[in-house]
Amino acid sequence: MEKLYIGVDLGGTSVKVGIVKKNGEILKKLSNPTNLPQPEEVIEDKICKLCLEICDECGIDIHKDIEAIGIGSPGNVNNKTGVIGFSSNFGYNDWHLKEKIEAKLGVKVEVENDANAAIIAEVNAGCAKGCPNAVILTLGTGVGSGVIINGKIYGGYNKSGAEMGHMVISVGGRECNCGRKGCFEKYASASALVYDTKVAMLGHPKSLLWKICPDINEVTSKTVFDAMEQGDKIAQKVFDSYIEYLACGITNIVNIFQPEILCLGGGISNQKDVLLKPLQEYLDREDYARGLNKRVKIKIADFRNDAGIIGAALVGVNNAR
Amino acid sequence: MEKLYIGVDLGGTSVKVGIVKKNGEILKKLSNPTNLPQPEEVIEDKICKLCLEICDECGIDIHKDIEAIGIGSPGNVNNKTGVIGFSSNFGYNDWHLKEKIEAKLGVKVEVENDANAAIIAEVNAGCAKGCPNAVILTLGTGVGSGVIINGKIYGGYNKSGAEMGHMVISVGGRECNCGRKGCFEKYASASALVYDTKVAMLGHPKSLLWKICPDINEVTSKTVFDAMEQGDKIAQKVFDSYIEYLACGITNIVNIFQPEILCLGGGISNQKDVLLKPLQEYLDREDYARGLNKRVKIKIADFRNDAGIIGAALVGVNNAR
Repeated sequence: MEKLYIGVDLGGTSVKVGIVKKNGEILKKLSNPTNLPQPEEVIEDKICKLCLEICDECGIDIHKDIEAIGIGSPGNVNNKTGVIGFSSNFGYNDWHLKEKIEAKLGVKVEVENDANAAIIAEVNAGCAKGCPNAVILTLGTGVGSGVIINGKIYGGYNKSGAEMGHMVISVGGRECNCGRKGCFEKYASASALVYDTKVAMLGHPKSLLWKICPDINEVTSKTVFDAMEQGDKIAQKVFDSYIEYLACGITNIVNIFQPEILCLGGGISNQKDVLLKPLQEYLDREDYARGLNKRVKIKIADFRNDAGIIGAALVGVNNAR
Repeated sequence: MEKLYIGVDLGGTSVKVGIVKKNGEILKKLSNPTNLPQPEEVIEDKICKLCLEICDECGIDIHKDIEAIGIGSPGNVNNKTGVIGFSSNFGYNDWHLKEKIEAKLGVKVEVENDANAAIIAEVNAGCAKGCPNAVILTLGTGVGSGVIINGKIYGGYNKSGAEMGHMVISVGGRECNCGRKGCFEKYASASALVYDTKVAMLGHPKSLLWKICPDINEVTSKTVFDAMEQGDKIAQKVFDSYIEYLACGITNIVNIFQPEILCLGGGISNQKDVLLKPLQEYLDREDYARGLNKRVKIKIADFRNDAGIIGAALVGVNNAR
């Protein structure tokens, strides 16, 4: 039987697992709410239970048929030791995740930062397939980022690099959890867009935004796009401001990395051309290399919701080669 | 006889050449004002004349004794083809510098971006010797930057990356030559410090700054350090604000690259601990990896004025190996 992989997407909201083939195809998915805060052991048990359950449901023997389990986690991950140095979302420090899960399941485990897992998915089987030099930004609760240089994940000296969400783009600006002020993710994450939408709604009681979402607590990043599509000027203003910040940070990253492909992931990237068009216009004005023929391509990530599962599984595939 | 190299530092103010040994030691230097603007040919002739002159003065046969000539230039440099894609300082586009100088002198020529040359000098023979993962920032007219990843210069897909000077840190801020607003170099270059010093002098006619430099047109970055040393509060304020911006951009770069060593070059770096101490304090507060044992080291570059010559020469050494 073809060897299979389990990908685990360890998120603040839910733990998702999937059985994944070598080519990135998902055979089956399961998930369970994370219910943070939780002691480390509870999360470890949740991961193990889900892995055993999904194998059971697929009639798979976890020891015979599963080559490796890949886990994508937010925070500072040492992909050699499988230790999570720190994760502000989970509140853990020095979490020996690889060791713990291997001991409990008896299967080889690989751990990688979640945004790194997402770019691994894209360069192995997605929009940046075969590309030796690529960057991903995932626009979610924060702005996650992963960088591939010469075909390998770039983590810097201490495996903690590529934290582009914590690049200040507005000195003295919005306070960030990381301790800085004005971080990119405080303006360009999905959470930031939701925040800005709510502020606009409170200031404009007649905006169409209220018709689309009468309960302000239910606002999502989609709310603003829906209102904009129906011609709401307030929504358009929120979006235009959001794009200015997003494009500013992306242009910084382009000027720094000049990757062949820069992919955008996370829920907001479902908006595709609504995002890509103004971003490209901004880059055409401000990219330092705009005079060259070889320009960075901005693409929407192929694996949006499943990037974590596929990428985490493919970390296992990569390392098993 | 031991093979020698010529390093050429092509600057906006002067063209400097030096005879350099394999270990980075300079045997002899010469320079000549650049006198921009000039047609390309005038600069090419100036380079050739200086190379021949310096060999003549040292009793060296350029064809027999010189292994290669390395040229460090500002702007977008393709180090494979030796073509300068564009250089805003010189105003040239698609300048086939390697080809032209090789044709004129009959010696192998290597061309590299000037900040890249500076980091090559540091990792080969300076403060980052043997370090596979290092970054340099040169604080001069602008902020130049060079990145070494796995022992090699990082240029990205189109050899135009690592332009950290053109990372916006203050959205909508000061206008930059590159077309953006709020670029790092508009706040952290030596020119920016001089500009801020002049503004402070005009606002404070009684500041000690005027005693140190009665002619405002003669202000240099040293002016503010001299006044500060003598207890001038206005100078201290200018410096404190400068450091906030410099540290902000450096922390961005640390969060992105987490290099083993980040070196500071350019005239301002002569201030050593006056710079390093507040920078380190800022990093200890804001570096995303401040909780880890492995932390980035900030160092003053060893080769300040001569980094361009030595680095350019060592590009030749590196490629001749």
